[in-house]
Amino acid sequence: MPPVKILVAQGGGPTAVINQSMVGVVQEARRFAQIEQVIGARFGVRGIVDENLIDLSQESNFNLEQVANTPSSALGSTRDKPDEKYCAEIFKVLRAHEIGHFFYIGGNDSSDTVRIVSEAAQQAGYPLRCIHIPKTIDNDLVGNDHTPGFPSAAKFVAQAFAGANLDNASLPGVYVGVVMGRHAGFLTAAAAMAKTFPDDGPHLIYLPERTFDIAQFLTDVKTTYDKYGRCVIAVSEGIHDASGTAIISLLSKDVEKDAHGNVQLSGTGALADLLCEEIKSKLGIKRVRGDTFGYLQRSFLGCVSDVDQHEAREVGEKAVQFALRGTRSDSRGGSVAIRRTGDYAVNYDLIALEAVAGKTRVMEDAFINASGTGVTDAFHAYLRPLLGRDFPQAARLRMNAIDKILKK
Amino acid sequence: MPPVKILVAQGGGPTAVINQSMVGVVQEARRFAQIEQVIGARFGVRGIVDENLIDLSQESNFNLEQVANTPSSALGSTRDKPDEKYCAEIFKVLRAHEIGHFFYIGGNDSSDTVRIVSEAAQQAGYPLRCIHIPKTIDNDLVGNDHTPGFPSAAKFVAQAFAGANLDNASLPGVYVGVVMGRHAGFLTAAAAMAKTFPDDGPHLIYLPERTFDIAQFLTDVKTTYDKYGRCVIAVSEGIHDASGTAIISLLSKDVEKDAHGNVQLSGTGALADLLCEEIKSKLGIKRVRGDTFGYLQRSFLGCVSDVDQHEAREVGEKAVQFALRGTRSDSRGGSVAIRRTGDYAVNYDLIALEAVAGKTRVMEDAFINASGTGVTDAFHAYLRPLLGRDFPQAARLRMNAIDKILKK
Repeated sequence: MPPVKILVAQGGGPTAVINQSMVGVVQEARRFAQIEQVIGARFGVRGIVDENLIDLSQESNFNLEQVANTPSSALGSTRDKPDEKYCAEIFKVLRAHEIGHFFYIGGNDSSDTVRIVSEAAQQAGYPLRCIHIPKTIDNDLVGNDHTPGFPSAAKFVAQAFAGANLDNASLPGVYVGVVMGRHAGFLTAAAAMAKTFPDDGPHLIYLPERTFDIAQFLTDVKTTYDKYGRCVIAVSEGIHDASGTAIISLLSKDVEKDAHGNVQLSGTGALADLLCEEIKSKLGIKRVRGDTFGYLQRSFLGCVSDVDQHEAREVGEKAVQFALRGTRSDSRGGSVAIRRTGDYAVNYDLIALEAVAGKTRVMEDAFINASGTGVTDAFHAYLRPLLGRDFPQAARLRMNAIDKILKK
Repeated sequence: MPPVKILVAQGGGPTAVINQSMVGVVQEARRFAQIEQVIGARFGVRGIVDENLIDLSQESNFNLEQVANTPSSALGSTRDKPDEKYCAEIFKVLRAHEIGHFFYIGGNDSSDTVRIVSEAAQQAGYPLRCIHIPKTIDNDLVGNDHTPGFPSAAKFVAQAFAGANLDNASLPGVYVGVVMGRHAGFLTAAAAMAKTFPDDGPHLIYLPERTFDIAQFLTDVKTTYDKYGRCVIAVSEGIHDASGTAIISLLSKDVEKDAHGNVQLSGTGALADLLCEEIKSKLGIKRVRGDTFGYLQRSFLGCVSDVDQHEAREVGEKAVQFALRGTRSDSRGGSVAIRRTGDYAVNYDLIALEAVAGKTRVMEDAFINASGTGVTDAFHAYLRPLLGRDFPQAARLRMNAIDKILKK
């Protein structure tokens, strides 16, 4: 076999385990004698176009393993969404550096980039195999049981709500925690894993898969508060009304929009503050507090699911195997997908880029309860094994009451 | 010795290890034959007045240890700040239940409550020994090297900023993280422990011990952004101008005040959002994101310093020892204080309640650098051992550049 160079890059929002996939590519590549060099592009596809490239073959094993255990994209990332022209530029650089295989770790936008670059290579008659490696805390890639990055973010959200529930139980009131997720509610739904006892929060969960009605929301909160003397609420940043308008836009006049016209949802505490203000003013509850988990849920150093770590590593390894041992039928490449094969076990397929590119998975109806403010047992069964072996458990006192003497 | 009952309660904001201290009292009490029962009051001093009491002697060892490892106040807490009359009510209930020793785990307000109850008992000629057990994430108790709860919260803040720095390095821009602390900046300063490399964030740290000037702030941010192409900022929620007015009040007209006239600082993302808006509008930087760490930093399930765990347990144990083996001179009780005796080792003293009650420690000048936007080596040396043995470390690639071909 002729010697080949490969290139790896990371796109989109960072996760706690995206470096495991990158290191999986580098380490697996070393086991193939025909791979002479592993090149990394800095800041995603932007780094390819700018020829901002580094030699990953010069990294030591020890440092690679340290980086694998470090959250966020070690190569740097980008929010660029390449069009045909941009992809032609990418291809030009890949050809100039004689790259044989292109690996891009990212979400569904990234898989679309891989698809277009792959087509450009085919049209030019250049033998480039392009592999998309899945990654997203949103868990919104079709064709996958789940996506690397989601389990660790879910663990963070569940542990955060377990703590917020205990805090709220000790100093009762209403607590609103806002979680990332524009279209898919998986990460917000993970808050449900915080519950141990029937009266534990989160008592209410609001997902972008269901229409959010402010009047109904206030009724739900009042009912819960009257029952438990407190209320813990998980809210997706992507909640919207029946017309699809983001609730943050309805409650606030001053919102930031990106180049695509999408309202900026993360990096601001506005939605939590606005919902808290509604509860205070309309329900007259005094102690109402809101937190927006923001960037902590995807980058916090020191909260990772071991299952997620292992799978993120494996999708990187499998990507190299699929590229180097691919059959004629998938010679253009594809997207590595996680399949659940047991309870709990997984295996990996290479699926067509067209099956993933630009598509968004949302929570299946079977995962959302009838009222639309919580999850089903099926969701618990789905998510529990992903959180890994060291998911912590909260305990409470058994509370044996002592008879009153003065106020009996 | 005559049999004695003891009572323990938890006050103020929860911490990750406040249950260690409570369990320390319960478990140590079992080693003293004359203690016939350990009673817990639910929701702090409010539970004493309401006779909302439970029998902690009926708890199993296993469950007590599980609770010790659970964050937030297992007995419940209160924000009540008892006056003389309230303390007289407390004393009435303690006497009715024949309590011999009263243990209150809390901050400087709680120590003041213990002081007043102790005086009420003395005036009534009732032999009650009252012990204040220190606890606060703010680290603002005088007479202590540091306070239980602070090290774990500091670990959370440092790990959060380590992750935020990596996120900001991969997708460059400005990041503002707002940390709890009205008067003392210790917890915000803990963000400095996130740094490994010279260009790591947080690049700027703003503490309530220094006057905050918005124009100077914008200059600092611009200088840092021009130098690194990005900027990570740690801000205390308690920052104020030269007149002592909270910055959140200056930037926003609509702030909530508590019964004491204090501006509500936590449970809202307003300060981060307002600072981000200043940076965007005045400096013209596009990608500016803000997070408010909120309740996560004091309650997150699964981020604790082992040193903090052990010390929080020990202050509970020592409280019982001081109460049961006290000398005539401290017969009224006192406050357990942590002394640093080595690098790193501690021991415990019982100091006068008057020495702690109602006083606030702030960061020593030796801990703050000359520009007032960072910490000194002395602060690093002070805090590092408190973070414990498993403080995670971020790694980065060595980045061996590859020569450009097309754009040389």
